[in-house]
Amino acid sequence: MKAEIISVGTELLLGQLVDTNSVWLSQQLSMLGIDSHFKTTVGDNAHNIQSVFALATERADIIIATGGLGPTQDDITKETLATTLGLPLVYDEALAEMIREKLASRNITMSENNYRQAHYPQGCQILEKYPGTAPGLYLNHQGKHYFLLPGVPYEMKAIFEASVVPILRQISPDHLRIYTEVLKLWGLPESHVAERLSELDDRLADIGNPKLSYLASGINGISVRISAKAADEKAAHAMIAPYQKEAEEILAPYIFGHNQQTMERCILKLCAAQNLTLGCVEWFTAGMMASRLTAYGENLEPFKGGLVMRGKFDQAAFEAAQETLNVDIVLGVSENFTESSTVYECQLHLCVQDQYFSKIIQIPKHQREEAMAFAVINCFNFLKNQLQTVEK
Amino acid sequence: MKAEIISVGTELLLGQLVDTNSVWLSQQLSMLGIDSHFKTTVGDNAHNIQSVFALATERADIIIATGGLGPTQDDITKETLATTLGLPLVYDEALAEMIREKLASRNITMSENNYRQAHYPQGCQILEKYPGTAPGLYLNHQGKHYFLLPGVPYEMKAIFEASVVPILRQISPDHLRIYTEVLKLWGLPESHVAERLSELDDRLADIGNPKLSYLASGINGISVRISAKAADEKAAHAMIAPYQKEAEEILAPYIFGHNQQTMERCILKLCAAQNLTLGCVEWFTAGMMASRLTAYGENLEPFKGGLVMRGKFDQAAFEAAQETLNVDIVLGVSENFTESSTVYECQLHLCVQDQYFSKIIQIPKHQREEAMAFAVINCFNFLKNQLQTVEK
Repeated sequence: MKAEIISVGTELLLGQLVDTNSVWLSQQLSMLGIDSHFKTTVGDNAHNIQSVFALATERADIIIATGGLGPTQDDITKETLATTLGLPLVYDEALAEMIREKLASRNITMSENNYRQAHYPQGCQILEKYPGTAPGLYLNHQGKHYFLLPGVPYEMKAIFEASVVPILRQISPDHLRIYTEVLKLWGLPESHVAERLSELDDRLADIGNPKLSYLASGINGISVRISAKAADEKAAHAMIAPYQKEAEEILAPYIFGHNQQTMERCILKLCAAQNLTLGCVEWFTAGMMASRLTAYGENLEPFKGGLVMRGKFDQAAFEAAQETLNVDIVLGVSENFTESSTVYECQLHLCVQDQYFSKIIQIPKHQREEAMAFAVINCFNFLKNQLQTVEK
Repeated sequence: MKAEIISVGTELLLGQLVDTNSVWLSQQLSMLGIDSHFKTTVGDNAHNIQSVFALATERADIIIATGGLGPTQDDITKETLATTLGLPLVYDEALAEMIREKLASRNITMSENNYRQAHYPQGCQILEKYPGTAPGLYLNHQGKHYFLLPGVPYEMKAIFEASVVPILRQISPDHLRIYTEVLKLWGLPESHVAERLSELDDRLADIGNPKLSYLASGINGISVRISAKAADEKAAHAMIAPYQKEAEEILAPYIFGHNQQTMERCILKLCAAQNLTLGCVEWFTAGMMASRLTAYGENLEPFKGGLVMRGKFDQAAFEAAQETLNVDIVLGVSENFTESSTVYECQLHLCVQDQYFSKIIQIPKHQREEAMAFAVINCFNFLKNQLQTVEK
């Protein structure tokens, strides 16, 4: 089964909006083990949408379109699919009622345009996540499977997860799914990671399944991914486990987590385990460190707060922060303003109870935002290494 | 002239990478007044890339492809274009020399794969921004214009701006370009903005050029865009100016800037004009406010720093911040932890010298990141209104 994703919307074609829907859908299809060969973006133009539907019908089995399901005159995805397939548009009173209720809950009365929303190509099945959401549609026509989903990302995702995934599993039941285990690490360049794993990588390349891959993703560190195609999670786990163990032994000192786990989660756990509270002082990163430490919101502890400073590092201010923030550990990062046009020279500062540590790092000067993210993960890693040394 | 953008790369098709190149290219084409009707993403597969090139050749005049120009076996964009058009691949010694120099500057010797990079479809012209960048290619074949650009965003953009734009201007010389003036505002819902401008909007709809449009863009406020198709900037300005003046008069109290100007720039300017220094205390926004006030880095003044706090609002801590941060104004935002599952109740706090102001706002509970951004712009607007009242 081959899938094709179609994104409908003139604003996407003009670059006024970034198409995150198709990125997310691509990931989901890939995890489901369904290949897709093309992704097309088309504006709100009936002739062009029809030509894209016709082409996708020729070259794919599963066609997923997002956008163009709203109430305005611009929203023509349903009409064009009907035209392309030579199907009539039918009116569904139950769907009209659903829309009426939704609008009533917001004190809006139903307009002529809203009645347009209650039409769909004959044979469609309504995909609904919960009342109050614009429904998606599923059509099984001449062996091809069409899914029309709203363009609003959280509505699209809710419908996909609740209603589209079960249908996809049903229409491709013997499909092997792709399961992935991820090791997250920092402190070793990507090329060195690949070098250390090269023997394992070669062996897996010969076997073909599972597969090993790398992804450097900025503030989220480097990911080593071991993916297996398998019938279910248990079978996948059994295939992945021995290789994962090997990779973990090779990379142990650099690993801070697995799968979705973050570096900040790692250091907050280490702090909690040692009963230490944490604060930060940011000259270079302007609140990004505090923001990462807060995002891990399960529990307010052990991060107690932060300070955002301007200009040059001030040792007295840094040391005073332990008292101001009333914490055991203060983590800081500042910039040494140098003449270099190619790198930022940053200094990491760490105060653990009464010990002061510091380290200088150099960060390529591309985008400041990226450089800040790089400084943050290095800073967290600096603390991680320190806390793990204490642990031993 | 119609253009079509093609993004080549399996990682784009799998959703491992977000295709920012095509978004940027769409914007550039739109500004140049060149329409594009389709955007296609295709993996590193010769058969599929050929079918996309063949289709684009049928339905567009200008074909711009990014990605697949690198040295590895995956990089086959040039070969597939040659096959699609029935052209031989030729070797260019001058290009080989360019690549050799580039590698030598990084102490790398040229490999077999690098020699592959010195081939291109017969008839291509090399598009080079500066030595050290992978060159792009331009081919004018049977009335169609093909541009092959590297996938690395900053290389792609540099080549597009330096080499592609002049060619596009030449091949569509009498093209009217689109010029846009943007009013940035906050404090009025988008639907109310549209209502207040409806009479002006109707008049412009009758005229057809310039055009009025709206875009709500989160932390960057609401944009009212007036776009004119014109031969040059001066002519566009003359067409736009009277309508811009009208819109500005209608929306005056809500406007904080024009074009790329931000709300934080607006409040920093107001502070500077009144010789006031500014600090912030963030319970809800975890450093985002400080980060926005720092991003406007032209001058370190008047923002002096911030505090990131956890948990509940603490009036004493807020008032103490004026002294801790040594500033005239403290801006703060905290969350009133309510039972609501649909909204965050946030409180904005403002201390201007010895006066304290506060305001409660409600923010829909979707994504926390979005809610934080909404709180930040509301907080800045709260200060803007206060400073403008003082000004009068």
